Amino acid sequence: MDSCVTAAVARSLGHDLCLLHADYGQRTEAREAQAFHAIAEHYQVPHKRRLVVSLEGLRAVGGSALTDRAIPLPEGALDREGIPASYVPFRNAHLLSLATSWAEVLGARDIFVGFVEEDSSGYPDCREAFLRAFEAAARLGTRPETRPTFHAPLMHRDKAAIVRLGVSLGAPLALTWSCYDGETVACGRCDSCLLRLRGFHGAAVPDPIPYARVPERFKVG
Amino acid sequence: MDSCVTAAVARSLGHDLCLLHADYGQRTEAREAQAFHAIAEHYQVPHKRRLVVSLEGLRAVGGSALTDRAIPLPEGALDREGIPASYVPFRNAHLLSLATSWAEVLGARDIFVGFVEEDSSGYPDCREAFLRAFEAAARLGTRPETRPTFHAPLMHRDKAAIVRLGVSLGAPLALTWSCYDGETVACGRCDSCLLRLRGFHGAAVPDPIPYARVPERFKVG
Repeated sequence: MDSCVTAAVARSLGHDLCLLHADYGQRTEAREAQAFHAIAEHYQVPHKRRLVVSLEGLRAVGGSALTDRAIPLPEGALDREGIPASYVPFRNAHLLSLATSWAEVLGARDIFVGFVEEDSSGYPDCREAFLRAFEAAARLGTRPETRPTFHAPLMHRDKAAIVRLGVSLGAPLALTWSCYDGETVACGRCDSCLLRLRGFHGAAVPDPIPYARVPERFKVG
Repeated sequence: MDSCVTAAVARSLGHDLCLLHADYGQRTEAREAQAFHAIAEHYQVPHKRRLVVSLEGLRAVGGSALTDRAIPLPEGALDREGIPASYVPFRNAHLLSLATSWAEVLGARDIFVGFVEEDSSGYPDCREAFLRAFEAAARLGTRPETRPTFHAPLMHRDKAAIVRLGVSLGAPLALTWSCYDGETVACGRCDSCLLRLRGFHGAAVPDPIPYARVPERFKVG
């Protein structure tokens, strides 16, 4: 959902879109890839401007509940302390590296990412401080004319504000997928479902995707 | 060769070695993988401490003479201005990201890289300034206890000094491969061969690997 709303923001600013999807061995990759292409179709992004890449290294390294089925997914509460088991070690550096390499070859400068620090699971690689440090590294590690600029329009918004922004921009939220576990219906129990449901509830907008169950406190309307 | 001498330095400092090799679609990947495993055998690094990963994204993105055969390899001169066609866009960020993710899962802190700024092809992602900026990003983008530290013991040495250091540490230089083009004999024409041959010549040490030709000015003994 965050990626989709971010794409809507980039389009609303007049950018031509090039879209990146990564398979890093996450449980719901097939469903995410389906969502990626559906959103790309919605925005009429041709296949040559879509990059789908396997980050085999993250799967090989493991160390996360998203990539190693021996590690259980956290469930049912968003108020835990610390970094949850769904953290994929330094995942976003791999995504940003890919985006930077692709931008350098395309001659693109503006890289949009759906990072959210404000209302997130507490992943260290989603924070503004990390993104700005990576941007500094990316400018030093590429050709002088590349000068990548990272934009994270959702960074300091809560999920309700993200839902409202998506609705206001006509983002195709029904095509998005957030659940860490299910691929046909969303589980309604994992952190990602709970964050999303809390956002739709806060925005007083019904979530258009199907859930196995919705906790009573997040029911809308 | 730089990776091998770097491994020798890390071992000489008493570290246990975990070794990373990446296939990013480079022309000589198979020969490099063979060298990687031979060096790992030399240092008795077990298979579970070797990580061999395909960086499919760099192959997909292209934009380099090393990964796209439609782009010719630069040959025959080391005094060109600018960044050569063998530069792989932001490649080292992908390697550093992988190393950081793996270190985080292993609980390792010290990451050694064979970057050389002093006597190099002029790649922006081999420079000390880039490495330090990436290190800052890696500390912000991982768990607080991870705190990766990057070591680049060759950064400010010329190739002759690297050869001398390798010899003094007993590094298995005969097992290394540097050529961008050949996989049976080194071409003796690409930038990587010329840099290497100039280093051995400067150190007055014969290069133990086979060459199709060695330019007269770099012949030793």
